[in-house]
Amino acid sequence: MLPFSRVAIIGLGLIGSSLARAIKTQMPTVRVTGYDASAEVRATAERIKLCDDVTDTPGAAVIDADLLILCVPVGAMGTVAQEIAADLPADAIVSDVGSCKANILSALEKALPGRIIIPAHPVAGTENSGPEAGFASLFKGRWCIITPPSDAEAASVARVAELWRRLGANVETMDAEHHDLVLAVTSHLPHLIAYTIVGTASDLEDVTRSEVIKYSAGGFRDFTRIAASDPTMWRDVFLTNKEAVLEMLQRFSEDLSALQRAIRWNDGDALFNLFTRTRAIRRSIIEEGQDDAAPDFGRTH
Amino acid sequence: MLPFSRVAIIGLGLIGSSLARAIKTQMPTVRVTGYDASAEVRATAERIKLCDDVTDTPGAAVIDADLLILCVPVGAMGTVAQEIAADLPADAIVSDVGSCKANILSALEKALPGRIIIPAHPVAGTENSGPEAGFASLFKGRWCIITPPSDAEAASVARVAELWRRLGANVETMDAEHHDLVLAVTSHLPHLIAYTIVGTASDLEDVTRSEVIKYSAGGFRDFTRIAASDPTMWRDVFLTNKEAVLEMLQRFSEDLSALQRAIRWNDGDALFNLFTRTRAIRRSIIEEGQDDAAPDFGRTH
Repeated sequence: MLPFSRVAIIGLGLIGSSLARAIKTQMPTVRVTGYDASAEVRATAERIKLCDDVTDTPGAAVIDADLLILCVPVGAMGTVAQEIAADLPADAIVSDVGSCKANILSALEKALPGRIIIPAHPVAGTENSGPEAGFASLFKGRWCIITPPSDAEAASVARVAELWRRLGANVETMDAEHHDLVLAVTSHLPHLIAYTIVGTASDLEDVTRSEVIKYSAGGFRDFTRIAASDPTMWRDVFLTNKEAVLEMLQRFSEDLSALQRAIRWNDGDALFNLFTRTRAIRRSIIEEGQDDAAPDFGRTH
Repeated sequence: MLPFSRVAIIGLGLIGSSLARAIKTQMPTVRVTGYDASAEVRATAERIKLCDDVTDTPGAAVIDADLLILCVPVGAMGTVAQEIAADLPADAIVSDVGSCKANILSALEKALPGRIIIPAHPVAGTENSGPEAGFASLFKGRWCIITPPSDAEAASVARVAELWRRLGANVETMDAEHHDLVLAVTSHLPHLIAYTIVGTASDLEDVTRSEVIKYSAGGFRDFTRIAASDPTMWRDVFLTNKEAVLEMLQRFSEDLSALQRAIRWNDGDALFNLFTRTRAIRRSIIEEGQDDAAPDFGRTH
């Protein structure tokens, strides 16, 4: 039995549009309704037939939904939830795909008191944005973390979990606070660092922009992919998961200072030991199917 | 006319073995002789028929070479050059593939006084190491930077440039000091940061190693590729290009502190502006053919 039959998706960017495609591919009988705040995005979604119906207001999208998935930037979740509150059926489950769960849960509980709220976070994406960047297989083999509030009914959690499993994801459940700490290190800190180094490189006086680009295959280009991610989404993530991000950033800065000191004092052993230790993590990530084994990310040579 | 007819390669790791393969593929009549300090690597090279001849001593490899290319870790260049000094023909050109040019040039000039030394650096590689990790097309479309000493003869520089062009590389010439500054930002700093963040993540107490691996698709996994690079090679790079690396590290740390402050004080505009600026660099790298355009590095989904 399908976990849901009428899914409303608000926000038709990379994740929202991938979700619409994945649901239509895996569960063709489910009716998918979509809305996006941008008229241009809505027009594109209509043109590429992303959903069964693209509505002109958020309320119209949710009016007969049994599942609503909010796919808007983290900072917009509360506002959008308020906008659809009057139109959402009382027994519909409200979920989302945001990267910071504790803050979203309180925003949704405030905007939708008494509703069934089961937040989730598919740990998947690419550096591209918009309704045309999405694809049906984005969630295949990736993890989706569900962070139910402590009083959530098991049956509701199971339905959301079943949806994600049908889209190809592995499902894990944890509390929102722990999620925010884990993602601060596996996702938020890496993005922050990538944005920083790309900014540092483009601000140099003695090295030209064209040199940075030409010789980027030495390692720099790996960072530029992440630093091409959606600016609004990531601004909201850092401002929302602030405490955990600042904590991880502090640890990273301490470790970087220790390495800087090792270089200054020619402590080759300290460098060698760290560089040997970090190799093992890559191997585990490949063994666990979380990255391709092909060297250089399988880039063409 | 071929630029060289007898090439000796000392060091048969990723780059040395790729070079041997590329030369045999593009210029099959060139005789390639190889040597590696590791008996195991020499045995592998024999088994996979990497070169026309694998010798038991470095001297035997260079004895009738018209080009010697040193493909050993940066810190070993001077020692290896001393070992082959007595056997190297007087008119042979000495080159290398190291990542720090100023230091290598002085080490080679000291070990091989009066010889023709034309250092070079192909900006290419993967995270894998050893003779079996190499492949003939590694240098195709990548840049090779030649850093001739100020008194180098144009004809010698032209021959080394011609070799790299025939292997598919684009060739650029610059002085060693500028090379070291450029590579500090496009290669050395990215590696240092990747090693650091992977170390930071694996040292956490509240987040398990298994969680870091499971949810690495949020961005972290991109860093683990670079942090799986050869420990000896990179230890030597940081200790050798110390001044430029420390300078870039200082700039990066300042920029990271500024971003940290923006997060702490909720300065969303500062974040948004940086994140918008960094998108453009990715576009240029793809336009210049220095990375694939496929989203997510073309990973399978």
